[in-house]
Amino acid sequence: MNLMPDQNRAAERKLHFDRIGLSAFLDEAFPGASRPSYGQVVSVEVDHVRMTLQPREEMLRPGDIVSGGSQMQFIDGAAYAVVLAHVGPVAMAVTHTLNVSFLRACRRETMIADARLMKLGRRLATVDVRLWQGSEDRLVAQSTVGYALP
Amino acid sequence: MNLMPDQNRAAERKLHFDRIGLSAFLDEAFPGASRPSYGQVVSVEVDHVRMTLQPREEMLRPGDIVSGGSQMQFIDGAAYAVVLAHVGPVAMAVTHTLNVSFLRACRRETMIADARLMKLGRRLATVDVRLWQGSEDRLVAQSTVGYALP
Amino acid sequence: MNLMPDQNRAAERKLHFDRIGLSAFLDEAFPGASRPSYGQVVSVEVDHVRMTLQPREEMLRPGDIVSGGSQMQFIDGAAYAVVLAHVGPVAMAVTHTLNVSFLRACRRETMIADARLMKLGRRLATVDVRLWQGSEDRLVAQSTVGYALP
Amino acid sequence: MNLMPDQNRAAERKLHFDRIGLSAFLDEAFPGASRPSYGQVVSVEVDHVRMTLQPREEMLRPGDIVSGGSQMQFIDGAAYAVVLAHVGPVAMAVTHTLNVSFLRACRRETMIADARLMKLGRRLATVDVRLWQGSEDRLVAQSTVGYALP
Repeated sequence: MNLMPDQNRAAERKLHFDRIGLSAFLDEAFPGASRPSYGQVVSVEVDHVRMTLQPREEMLRPGDIVSGGSQMQFIDGAAYAVVLAHVGPVAMAVTHTLNVSFLRACRRETMIADARLMKLGRRLATVDVRLWQGSEDRLVAQSTVGYALP
Repeated sequence: MNLMPDQNRAAERKLHFDRIGLSAFLDEAFPGASRPSYGQVVSVEVDHVRMTLQPREEMLRPGDIVSGGSQMQFIDGAAYAVVLAHVGPVAMAVTHTLNVSFLRACRRETMIADARLMKLGRRLATVDVRLWQGSEDRLVAQSTVGYALP
Repeated sequence: MNLMPDQNRAAERKLHFDRIGLSAFLDEAFPGASRPSYGQVVSVEVDHVRMTLQPREEMLRPGDIVSGGSQMQFIDGAAYAVVLAHVGPVAMAVTHTLNVSFLRACRRETMIADARLMKLGRRLATVDVRLWQGSEDRLVAQSTVGYALP
Repeated sequence: MNLMPDQNRAAERKLHFDRIGLSAFLDEAFPGASRPSYGQVVSVEVDHVRMTLQPREEMLRPGDIVSGGSQMQFIDGAAYAVVLAHVGPVAMAVTHTLNVSFLRACRRETMIADARLMKLGRRLATVDVRLWQGSEDRLVAQSTVGYALP
């Protein structure tokens, strides 16, 4: 992959995928039982991908709240999506680090993840992911995800 | 819960659950579809719980490797288990922060998680979790998990 | 400290300190040799404190760049400032967790830190800190800081 | 740098520096005012470097405790040292991510940092650092540090 160094300047970043292309790629890449846990692409813009997920039965833990593991899977998928949207399908990006702060209980209702590129280098990408329900300032979790690019 | 302050000194910590008691509690607390993703308790000692998990179909991503989300769910569950083993079932502990470094691809084979208490305060517990396959020095992931105690 | 539960709803948070009050408090709390490493308060708003710091000789590492430790000290101080701005001087807040992603070399020039409250609970506060130079989208580091409140 | 892939297998890692060589390198690399904040090398083994630091006046914050920033600087330096000990002076390693959990107040007394390589890849190294005082099980902080190798 010949990732131009100036991809690191936000003003010069370009999208490889639009919403439909990114959705199709994810459907193909995750054909199996795990696909539902990654949710659906809502919008794709430079530096920003929004995903949505309806919690499923197996994502819940006692108290009818979404488990931390399910939230992290969704977060990781959203970070992956925003990286792919910029570098395209040739990249076999691998999560390197993920840290998450859980801010509120995640209720059994629509989850939204906003994944924003903070840096896109040649070898490493860093993504901020905000998970919310109801309104954007009602954060459920914030996560910073580091991806290693091949 | 009257957690003695000196629980924070490793030498004076005591177990509330043994392996059988902890397993029974987890089976009861996670009765539904999510139970398998937490794995089985192998051993319970002061400051240390070991869990094991056989990857299931829905935990895999392309390349026949275990997804990051599934690893994090297992890690989170192991951290929860070691906290519970010490504070007992009265505590509704909630994950506050989790950070993980992925060190190697997680293959479709037995996963072991060693969760060790680094601190058990009255309000916050901090746990080191090492995920490995094959041998203890073949780390797949390292994670530090912070729990808020009620 | 009687921190109202609804402080956690951003719309209802209130400031305890304005810029001058916060500056005066920091000057008093850090009277010694460490004060310069925390920088100056630029602005104080609900959920947001901006700090600035001119790198000093002892903050540099080879290559004339600001060391990671100095960046982290500044980040930690900015997170502390935004918490204090809301809970006031009675609170002896203590950093519980801090994670940081370094995105670019930090040059020997003015550093700006934007610290934003993501959650202000009764016992834990979580703050997003962005460190930048030159322009807001030229991020040097992003950090998430967890504070334990007494 | 021609880092052999099998460096990632702990059993085959080799040291580039011994204690004296590593100390000399650090003294030369950090000639200025920042050198004291990195402490002294106590021992160098495969996968493990131990450093020590006496807190200085400017490292303290109110209450006569060592500031978080000073702890992080020491931690970062110890992580750097264990990477250097294996890859040698040709490597311009750069901290990529650092996360730290503060477990106890760091008193004004000798600080010890144990930095252990968890992974040494060709492009990324991951290090576990434990900071303690008095005895090894009296942890002051635990940190995971990711280094990008050139």
